[in-house]
Amino acid sequence: MRILFLGDVMGRSGRRAITERLAGLKARLKADFTIVNGENASGGMGLTGPHARLILDAGADCVTLGDHAFDQKDMLSFVAEEPRVLRPLNFAREAPGRGHRVFQDARGRKVLVVQALGQVFMKRPFDDPFSAVDQVLRAHPSGGLVQAAVVDFHAEATSEKMAMGHFCDGRASLVVGTHTHVPTADAQVLPRGTAYQSDAGMCGDYDSVIGMDKAEPMRRFLTGMGRDRFTPAEGEATLSGVLVVTDDRTGLATEIRPVRDGGRLQPGA
Amino acid sequence: MRILFLGDVMGRSGRRAITERLAGLKARLKADFTIVNGENASGGMGLTGPHARLILDAGADCVTLGDHAFDQKDMLSFVAEEPRVLRPLNFAREAPGRGHRVFQDARGRKVLVVQALGQVFMKRPFDDPFSAVDQVLRAHPSGGLVQAAVVDFHAEATSEKMAMGHFCDGRASLVVGTHTHVPTADAQVLPRGTAYQSDAGMCGDYDSVIGMDKAEPMRRFLTGMGRDRFTPAEGEATLSGVLVVTDDRTGLATEIRPVRDGGRLQPGA
Amino acid sequence: MRILFLGDVMGRSGRRAITERLAGLKARLKADFTIVNGENASGGMGLTGPHARLILDAGADCVTLGDHAFDQKDMLSFVAEEPRVLRPLNFAREAPGRGHRVFQDARGRKVLVVQALGQVFMKRPFDDPFSAVDQVLRAHPSGGLVQAAVVDFHAEATSEKMAMGHFCDGRASLVVGTHTHVPTADAQVLPRGTAYQSDAGMCGDYDSVIGMDKAEPMRRFLTGMGRDRFTPAEGEATLSGVLVVTDDRTGLATEIRPVRDGGRLQPGA
Amino acid sequence: MRILFLGDVMGRSGRRAITERLAGLKARLKADFTIVNGENASGGMGLTGPHARLILDAGADCVTLGDHAFDQKDMLSFVAEEPRVLRPLNFAREAPGRGHRVFQDARGRKVLVVQALGQVFMKRPFDDPFSAVDQVLRAHPSGGLVQAAVVDFHAEATSEKMAMGHFCDGRASLVVGTHTHVPTADAQVLPRGTAYQSDAGMCGDYDSVIGMDKAEPMRRFLTGMGRDRFTPAEGEATLSGVLVVTDDRTGLATEIRPVRDGGRLQPGA
Ligand SMILES: [Fe+2]
Ligand SMILES: [Fe+2]
Ligand SMILES: [Fe+2]
Ligand SMILES: [Fe+2]
Ligand SMILES: [Fe+2]
Ligand SMILES: [Fe+2]
Ligand SMILES: [Fe+2]
Ligand SMILES: [Fe+2]
Repeated sequence: MRILFLGDVMGRSGRRAITERLAGLKARLKADFTIVNGENASGGMGLTGPHARLILDAGADCVTLGDHAFDQKDMLSFVAEEPRVLRPLNFAREAPGRGHRVFQDARGRKVLVVQALGQVFMKRPFDDPFSAVDQVLRAHPSGGLVQAAVVDFHAEATSEKMAMGHFCDGRASLVVGTHTHVPTADAQVLPRGTAYQSDAGMCGDYDSVIGMDKAEPMRRFLTGMGRDRFTPAEGEATLSGVLVVTDDRTGLATEIRPVRDGGRLQPGA
Repeated sequence: MRILFLGDVMGRSGRRAITERLAGLKARLKADFTIVNGENASGGMGLTGPHARLILDAGADCVTLGDHAFDQKDMLSFVAEEPRVLRPLNFAREAPGRGHRVFQDARGRKVLVVQALGQVFMKRPFDDPFSAVDQVLRAHPSGGLVQAAVVDFHAEATSEKMAMGHFCDGRASLVVGTHTHVPTADAQVLPRGTAYQSDAGMCGDYDSVIGMDKAEPMRRFLTGMGRDRFTPAEGEATLSGVLVVTDDRTGLATEIRPVRDGGRLQPGA
Repeated sequence: MRILFLGDVMGRSGRRAITERLAGLKARLKADFTIVNGENASGGMGLTGPHARLILDAGADCVTLGDHAFDQKDMLSFVAEEPRVLRPLNFAREAPGRGHRVFQDARGRKVLVVQALGQVFMKRPFDDPFSAVDQVLRAHPSGGLVQAAVVDFHAEATSEKMAMGHFCDGRASLVVGTHTHVPTADAQVLPRGTAYQSDAGMCGDYDSVIGMDKAEPMRRFLTGMGRDRFTPAEGEATLSGVLVVTDDRTGLATEIRPVRDGGRLQPGA
Repeated sequence: MRILFLGDVMGRSGRRAITERLAGLKARLKADFTIVNGENASGGMGLTGPHARLILDAGADCVTLGDHAFDQKDMLSFVAEEPRVLRPLNFAREAPGRGHRVFQDARGRKVLVVQALGQVFMKRPFDDPFSAVDQVLRAHPSGGLVQAAVVDFHAEATSEKMAMGHFCDGRASLVVGTHTHVPTADAQVLPRGTAYQSDAGMCGDYDSVIGMDKAEPMRRFLTGMGRDRFTPAEGEATLSGVLVVTDDRTGLATEIRPVRDGGRLQPGA
């Protein structure tokens, strides 16, 4: 199976790139199943129901969220109604929606998607992601009832991300990080067959501060004092993520390829 | 000028790769000047004098450090004697050594190298890096007495790193991050001519947790309790960093190319 | 019932004060049951088995720990054998020992003791303490099979501590903080009958930096660079904590009194 | 000289207590000079010009701020015009206003007031407070041109606060912490004559979460998700702080007494 994963869609620039270019990218990469992280698609903070629908309509089979999951309050009800949108497993005990689900591709092959939040360097505390992911992976053994399994690990620290990769190695098709908004160049298939990249990067304008217009974040870094709200940068977005090729029998990866399309970043390998 | 920058050398695996392969890499890339971050070369924590000398002898013109600068206590005296080793500008008020220096390449062209520490998500507090770097760049205007200027920004958060890139844009040849031990795939020349990559990555074994043998860090993530010390992973290192091509007249970049050589990572673009 | 709770015993100075003065303090305060936090009794970092025994022999009915629970490795086996020593409920999934236990005073009255770790401003992440404490309190309703219930909330942030106080209000006899090593002056009985103080303070030398000899911590604050290990300050310790008077029928508090005995601090109210 | 220092005034409840009871408290304590921390007086976040004036009119000779200094935007201009309001020395390089000033009491005796922010566990990074305070104290030696010197150290960690106390010992009349909103019970005169208390506590309702109405902060701790804004609790405030008695010749302290007046807390010693 060929699975395309794209990182955090950032504001209007990111949404436009998804709307205009996702279909073509999927065709070019022959993607069977597509996952898009949407936690910053609405004004850079959270995801509204209409924007979630827009990403699904543009070709995503599944939309994941992150620490900004419910910044837009209508997501609290939307996520409960739209099973294709996942929030992190360990977001909060009473969060609506769910953190994993088994999807099907057009040919009926089953794909487990799971999302979890890291604990290191996050703005607020979350419960242990390792045991949460472990429980889901144990319930869906690779090469069993599901043909592929993808873990979106929404985390800051490279140490915690690499540890999650190794923790899932041999049990998932792909462990890919999100949250830092910068793609990493460490795509590899780990020793026991799980594809891994520390961060997918964002679908946003890379002439920015992690997708935000530079002026206000730089004012805060330079003067220690803010003045305005953050707003997403408006330049052309790079669609950024990975393509994984998996073996349907084992659920493991045979190849991982960085994907970067449009905007300022150099194209993926 | 062609400047090669390699990220954090990690333990014996990283040192061996530097010793055995740096000369060849420099030749292949036709590097005029080479900077290597050495903050983890000795047991993964800090840098001893002998290991600093080894990196210099292998072909580095300058060795930078980081938050682990003085984990090896002999560096406290070594850094004061060996001007080719720099510690961060804002490491501590009373730190020995210095945070910037003007070097010369073989043809006599001058290269300013500066290192600063970030403030976000670091284990201990450091003073503002922006004003520290600003002061040094103002004293060494690009296209003036120096032909090139490189800023090693040793920091965790992608937001702070991108902000530093824009802050130096048009004033430095290269702003490159270190510290996360994972290379990023966002190499670009910023609008006013400064080359930028959020992190150079490490020179170490990428089948690891940020260069450390997996067993102990994973035990800590999974059980919440440590048992042993961290030790560097021993597999073949990938040399990871960037090559920047600069214009001697302006001090600005005309090209930036990711460099990845050997080990598990896919070769640089 | 009259319950005495003393905060973090700090090194030799703290141990000596416990050995020499705890019996007298208990007699003077007519304490029926005594709990002592011992997480720093051994060199300021953790608690050895022999030092735990010393505190128990000096008159503690229960010894609680904290984030330093297993800094001394022999506690990993000792805690499993000595049921009077508790470690935090949410220390780590695989930690030996337990986080709560029902004790008896000399007259057979039952006292539940629970310890949990906070999540805010702690050096490493812990799982949610509120649901952990909730589960224990629900299983031991006040005025039921237990005559009193004490929660030692080992946490840094005053916000999280006050929230825990209110969360347990009407369900516990006492919620008392530990970990900051400084007693707070906010002793009160909360609206529904639970006694509360944000921090018990330490049993240690208050001419120090949180119980440690000043020289090294001040060197680190002032120069940004450490040189030696931390060692506990050796001046006379103040025994610091609270006395709670409870109603055996309801398990709620009728009075809370700060306790400070000896050393530099002004005596408790 | 008798100096009264009161901690963070919290919302309307705190303002009302200041307006109605500060004059009486000053009379009862025979205070010659009064300092009030006002960083939370306006809706719990920052201080407006009119509320600053209200505190000054109620009898404060000096109002200090904190990390919330400019949450209310009109303070950016007000602080520049009203020299009796101080913001932290190390708030930000480009912050308006100033971080220290020499005041006079009714008898013409000079009192230096300084405020600095801690670096440990704060929401954003600040530059080193030790060197900032050092510079001011060196310029105003005790027993010289000023008769007394007060340092308001707005910080979270007890370790950093105790270190600041010792750092100023023998050079200031009083080092008192603010920011945690809970008074500590460690008032003492340090070995070289500086009075010290880790935190002054707040002037606010102590049936709250650090002065805020319990409902919303508890919802966030318990469910991991917020719903509303924070609003200050409205119950009767305890005025909380310290009284220091100093020797005009040396500028050092002869006595420090905790002050707690009204509301839920037990009265000061
Ligand atoms: Fe994001
Ligand atoms: Fe995020
Ligand atoms: Fe490093
Ligand atoms: Fe580092
Ligand atoms: Fe402690
Ligand atoms: Fe502790
Ligand atoms: Fe405050
Ligand atoms: Fe504050």
